[in-house]
Amino acid sequence: MFKEYQHLRIPGPTPIAPEVQRAMDRTILGHRGGEFSKIFAETSEKAKKAFQTNQEVLFVASSGTGALEMAVANLVQPGDKVLVVVTGVFGERFAKIAKAYLADVLVLEFAYGRALDPQQVSSLLQQHPDIKAVFATHCETSTAVANPIQELAEIVKDSSAILVVDSVSALVGMDLQMDAWGVDIVVTASHKALGLPPGLALIAVSDKAWKIIEQHSGPRFYWDLRAYRDNAKKNTTPFTGPVALIFGLNKSLDLIFIEGLEQGFQRHLLLRNMVRQAIKALGLELLVKIDSEASATVTAILGDESFDVEQLRKILREEYKIIVAGGQQHLKGKIFRIGHLGYTHPMDILTTIAGVELALQQIGYPVELGAGVKAAEEVWANVKNIS
Amino acid sequence: MFKEYQHLRIPGPTPIAPEVQRAMDRTILGHRGGEFSKIFAETSEKAKKAFQTNQEVLFVASSGTGALEMAVANLVQPGDKVLVVVTGVFGERFAKIAKAYLADVLVLEFAYGRALDPQQVSSLLQQHPDIKAVFATHCETSTAVANPIQELAEIVKDSSAILVVDSVSALVGMDLQMDAWGVDIVVTASHKALGLPPGLALIAVSDKAWKIIEQHSGPRFYWDLRAYRDNAKKNTTPFTGPVALIFGLNKSLDLIFIEGLEQGFQRHLLLRNMVRQAIKALGLELLVKIDSEASATVTAILGDESFDVEQLRKILREEYKIIVAGGQQHLKGKIFRIGHLGYTHPMDILTTIAGVELALQQIGYPVELGAGVKAAEEVWANVKNIS
Repeated sequence: MFKEYQHLRIPGPTPIAPEVQRAMDRTILGHRGGEFSKIFAETSEKAKKAFQTNQEVLFVASSGTGALEMAVANLVQPGDKVLVVVTGVFGERFAKIAKAYLADVLVLEFAYGRALDPQQVSSLLQQHPDIKAVFATHCETSTAVANPIQELAEIVKDSSAILVVDSVSALVGMDLQMDAWGVDIVVTASHKALGLPPGLALIAVSDKAWKIIEQHSGPRFYWDLRAYRDNAKKNTTPFTGPVALIFGLNKSLDLIFIEGLEQGFQRHLLLRNMVRQAIKALGLELLVKIDSEASATVTAILGDESFDVEQLRKILREEYKIIVAGGQQHLKGKIFRIGHLGYTHPMDILTTIAGVELALQQIGYPVELGAGVKAAEEVWANVKNIS
Repeated sequence: MFKEYQHLRIPGPTPIAPEVQRAMDRTILGHRGGEFSKIFAETSEKAKKAFQTNQEVLFVASSGTGALEMAVANLVQPGDKVLVVVTGVFGERFAKIAKAYLADVLVLEFAYGRALDPQQVSSLLQQHPDIKAVFATHCETSTAVANPIQELAEIVKDSSAILVVDSVSALVGMDLQMDAWGVDIVVTASHKALGLPPGLALIAVSDKAWKIIEQHSGPRFYWDLRAYRDNAKKNTTPFTGPVALIFGLNKSLDLIFIEGLEQGFQRHLLLRNMVRQAIKALGLELLVKIDSEASATVTAILGDESFDVEQLRKILREEYKIIVAGGQQHLKGKIFRIGHLGYTHPMDILTTIAGVELALQQIGYPVELGAGVKAAEEVWANVKNIS
């Protein structure tokens, strides 16, 4: 009966709004036809608002990682010095991509569970004025850390370096004012806070970055940003675009603006606070200790010596139909992660916490049933000013 | 953002399983074609298992009420004496229909919130041996009472009367063994525990009832059961059938049998027990006091002098996205009803109760947040034997 029943609470893919599902279910269109161009043009304009930029937002048929590589492939020559700020697995991935392109990679690493410190970036930029690009992660999905992108941008924009931000699991879930803050390249993907299935990456580029990209002679074809920009002027993609996802994005952005960007950020913070208070009430420990460093889109919870995190996830999935993520790489088996981004209502958090309580009890962890839900409900009621 | 987001917890229509939705979304077929006949035949066989009968289950494009009228129209001549057992609004509806067909209607009424007493039916049948038919409701949706159909059938089958049971909001949510118990006519509808959209009614008829129907000369055309039976032999409906709903029913019954009928009944009982214990923990009163008289598919909760039930429903709907039913007729404004039938998982009950707690607090009813969810979780954990 309940084979497909689930509460998908990983940090992407996320649930899809029925409006968005229906928008994607419409008759498919050719990617060179006039009817598609019209939808492309509409969607482009909306995407600019989501990126808070006047630059063109380019649509690429790829995962988020593809668009991270796109940023690197359009900027980095062999031997170029780049700085990669690492706060987890996705920072490391940026470093791996830069190394694959034979960059001279400086890695600035922070303890897992901590946000980056912009002052340390500042020092490195002063020590290495030849740094061509700084790569940083907005929400580090692997640790559930939110990095201070505004402060980082403040520092990088005074240098000649290009700031590239992986906002894959953050954009529209957490504020990122590309133009106002001076971020040069912003990357995101469809299956995170935008609330679509995977397969579409989005990337926007500042004038400062375009100047470097124009002069860049490294090999790239599918990843050539100039081709996407030139075709976007004709309201299409250089290669076959993910047409159905663009239909979905057009509708998804409508829903996002109906809620309002700022209200959306506040909702994501509420979801985060509900999860964090509930987890504390259940006696479990959060990986990110400092509230201001905690992502609004995902929360990482440390396991306990008394239970097996993977067993907890299995029971959550099989018996309570709640799908949460595990840890990645050296955090595997040590944490589980609850995604609370995109089409996620506070009611969904209450459901999730109820399942977590029951699953914890089932694996023998001492828990007072209802305590987590109560804590989460109180957070919400406080926001509503109910007592 | 959340315009269509909802937790539909009325006693039908219910949520639709994605498998069922997809089955209905397939290319429509003509209702006289061979491809449809094949699906009709499959679905008919499955429907017999759901009704626990060897009789043909007939498919009618109508609401449940249409099929109630169908039963009356095929049995009742002007002046015929019939007994209608009334435990709420849907029992009253049966009486209204019988009166519209000019029957001599005996009404045996029980207090709202109480189940029928088969012994009183027995006495009336003895006093009135000319009663042609007894009409009773399995789950009285308006009061959330479950009537003892097996005991009733035991009594009626010794008389010449035909027992007609409205199992619209019960079938496959509560046990009804048509052949084994000796129920003559069973009626249900698609949008209840069968988990489909509204528009399809199902009706099955015993040999004892067919004998009366064959001789019946009252006016009927669309409601003529013989036409449905004769066409069912050719795997179609006499008039245009609700083709997409029959696709959905075919899949829905697959899901029901994957779970198992008996396991489904147990799940509905679990959902009921979770709701009842939670409501008690929140200090509210149940309309049906006696557990054994409480429906497994819907629960009615009495309001309190300190709050307005309709205001509670409004807040539940608008702020917590939980759609519950109000009271009908003289119970309007006095109760609210939580449906827990069909494609409803225990997690959905936890979500619902969390919303009810928050909405109660919001309208000023003194409630300990988490107490209801805790009680519901405990019921479930006990069934799982977790402590």
